Amino acid sequence: MYDVTKIRADFPILTREVNGKPLVYLDNGASAQKPQVVIDAVTRGYAEEYANVHRGLHYLSNLATEKYEGVRGIIARFLGVSDPDEIVYTTGTTMGINLVAYGWAMPNLQAGDEIVLSVMEHHANIVPWHFLRERQGVVIKWVDVDDQGVLDPQKVIDAIGPKTKLVAITQMSNVLGTEVDVKTICSAAREKGVPVLVDGSQGSVHMPVNVEDIGCDFYAITGHKLYGPSASGAIYMKRARMDEMRPFMGGGDMIREVHKETVCYNDPPMKFEAGTPGIVQQIGLGVALEYMMHVGMSNIAAHEADLRDYTSSRLEGINWLQVQGKAPGKGAIFSFTLDGAGHAHDISTILDKKGVAVRAGHHCAGPLMDHLGVSATCRASFAMYNTREEVDILVEALELAHDLLG
Amino acid sequence: MYDVTKIRADFPILTREVNGKPLVYLDNGASAQKPQVVIDAVTRGYAEEYANVHRGLHYLSNLATEKYEGVRGIIARFLGVSDPDEIVYTTGTTMGINLVAYGWAMPNLQAGDEIVLSVMEHHANIVPWHFLRERQGVVIKWVDVDDQGVLDPQKVIDAIGPKTKLVAITQMSNVLGTEVDVKTICSAAREKGVPVLVDGSQGSVHMPVNVEDIGCDFYAITGHKLYGPSASGAIYMKRARMDEMRPFMGGGDMIREVHKETVCYNDPPMKFEAGTPGIVQQIGLGVALEYMMHVGMSNIAAHEADLRDYTSSRLEGINWLQVQGKAPGKGAIFSFTLDGAGHAHDISTILDKKGVAVRAGHHCAGPLMDHLGVSATCRASFAMYNTREEVDILVEALELAHDLLG
Repeated sequence: MYDVTKIRADFPILTREVNGKPLVYLDNGASAQKPQVVIDAVTRGYAEEYANVHRGLHYLSNLATEKYEGVRGIIARFLGVSDPDEIVYTTGTTMGINLVAYGWAMPNLQAGDEIVLSVMEHHANIVPWHFLRERQGVVIKWVDVDDQGVLDPQKVIDAIGPKTKLVAITQMSNVLGTEVDVKTICSAAREKGVPVLVDGSQGSVHMPVNVEDIGCDFYAITGHKLYGPSASGAIYMKRARMDEMRPFMGGGDMIREVHKETVCYNDPPMKFEAGTPGIVQQIGLGVALEYMMHVGMSNIAAHEADLRDYTSSRLEGINWLQVQGKAPGKGAIFSFTLDGAGHAHDISTILDKKGVAVRAGHHCAGPLMDHLGVSATCRASFAMYNTREEVDILVEALELAHDLLG
Repeated sequence: MYDVTKIRADFPILTREVNGKPLVYLDNGASAQKPQVVIDAVTRGYAEEYANVHRGLHYLSNLATEKYEGVRGIIARFLGVSDPDEIVYTTGTTMGINLVAYGWAMPNLQAGDEIVLSVMEHHANIVPWHFLRERQGVVIKWVDVDDQGVLDPQKVIDAIGPKTKLVAITQMSNVLGTEVDVKTICSAAREKGVPVLVDGSQGSVHMPVNVEDIGCDFYAITGHKLYGPSASGAIYMKRARMDEMRPFMGGGDMIREVHKETVCYNDPPMKFEAGTPGIVQQIGLGVALEYMMHVGMSNIAAHEADLRDYTSSRLEGINWLQVQGKAPGKGAIFSFTLDGAGHAHDISTILDKKGVAVRAGHHCAGPLMDHLGVSATCRASFAMYNTREEVDILVEALELAHDLLG
């Protein structure tokens, strides 16, 4: 039995008020709130157990190293990865995808080589490829979604040609909530010998993920969306792809030996982790993932599916609201605009007065905004701790916005 | 009056025991401990005031944005920079120097162009340049230190030739404590039209820094060494150098517009800050720097100079101990080996039994280890909260190590 009241009690910020109203936090697509166990782990990390990791040989350094390195196994378990050494620590998906762009794609792709993207990608999964276009003539091939926001996997597969060197695709749109059948795409791409990078920023938060079952080559996650600390994160990289990569950032830890004229790099995953890492953040991320697994990813997905269905039914009745994206089985992410009326930013500001936190803007998805023919939307995005009552408050606040702006 | 007892009371970890002994934390060169105000800022950041920054338009997002962006001005003040927009957020010096290597040097340097480094550089200020050597034929020119560990600025200036495009140099050796006269180097380099990057990882912790007085083009700092959270940091980049740079990481926030076929980048500093940043860590860094400025950088420097002199006098009396580096005015960083006896790692392990945390190894300074003719040293590095009594405990523990290993 999913006890959302009990879960809410684990998140201290959810008891606070905003503008004199109880906080209704529906900006989870941008970042999720943190349970007390994560905050406690961070506090303890600094107040009682802090030192730099690796090469320490003293008690606190060994303790921090053990806790920090232990998170690799937790992430591997969370993602269904057998070998924790295929998990590379990052500060989030942006860094993870840049690592692949600089470390794998830059040295391996030539002018004219193609990368296949969906139009729903987040800028984090677009701009690194624009760099390759600008700097070395790589060609980006775009696959559109239909008018429900559905991405047909066959259209992605059909876009893979003889010059395609990579498919880079989200598992769940951060704007529309659309879930992408990445497994089918990976299976076909593998037959054609084309690696697939999956942006798991949203997908990993809202559904059980098994990377080996998906069959992708890269799978990037962002810790702060997974109820973990800011600037925590990781990327799964298949061993065979790691072997094709050169290092990204240079510095301590990622080397075995440095001399004046030569340098010898460390083995993965260390090869891709330069300098003192986000020690305490990664320890906090481990606690966050344990928390999610304890609640159960299937339970979280079921709870959020209920919120999605309830929200859909409430919003469907409103004829002055345009919801963007109605893919079956989508995540509990709702982007909308108000008929003829106020700009998304104005709606957001009015909702805020009622304590309802949503995001307004392009949601780092410029090509999708172009595709939808809008410059911005208002987005309500749900998490494991949200409730039907909060949906009702959202709808009430939207009605107020409509009255004021209509 | 510098009240070290009062300062120690601000750092909760300093009251703990290690192996049944009071902690004597002398591994500050690797990372410093955190005062309660920093830990509280982090806790409050997550428990009461958390949301993603920028583009939010709701109360918590605006609050987090204001606090997060406010740190830019604190860092500018800490470094003596007039324009906060010349401060770019990073996760530490490693990322800062990689940003310069990828964003400035990679597009601007050709095969045969030279970069001048000192032999004392940390791997973070070596490996990014080795990348350029390996990938595009850039030549690294090394400047040695003398047998006291002194770096003659004139030798650095003399190494600048017609093909030199950058001088990249530490302000303080993390192994020897040697302070480098970066101002004289910058002045001469400027006359020759050669930019200078200063690695301020150690220097900024131990002395007052005024970047505009130094006259460098880049100055990188690491938050976790500055009593701030892990993975916090920043780099100062002169406006004129920023204008010559292309972006490093691609993603959200660093763009103005993204379309299928085009991308338009944001203005600095945002141009160099991709994706959701380390929001709470940077807020914590701001609090840490305010704490340091409240204590006073000159006061910290004077206290540490006293610790350096006392430690020097205590260690000088020990004829079986070789201290590496005796530069006048050096920082309170002592690297040493035991005469004929135990390996640095064994010494470190014995000291740990007495509660004394030091570091053993190459300290991410391979070329310096080669220069010194050792494979590793034991390093005791001091901070604002250390005391003469702790020096005495260190010396006692070293005597025990000598007895056991001698």
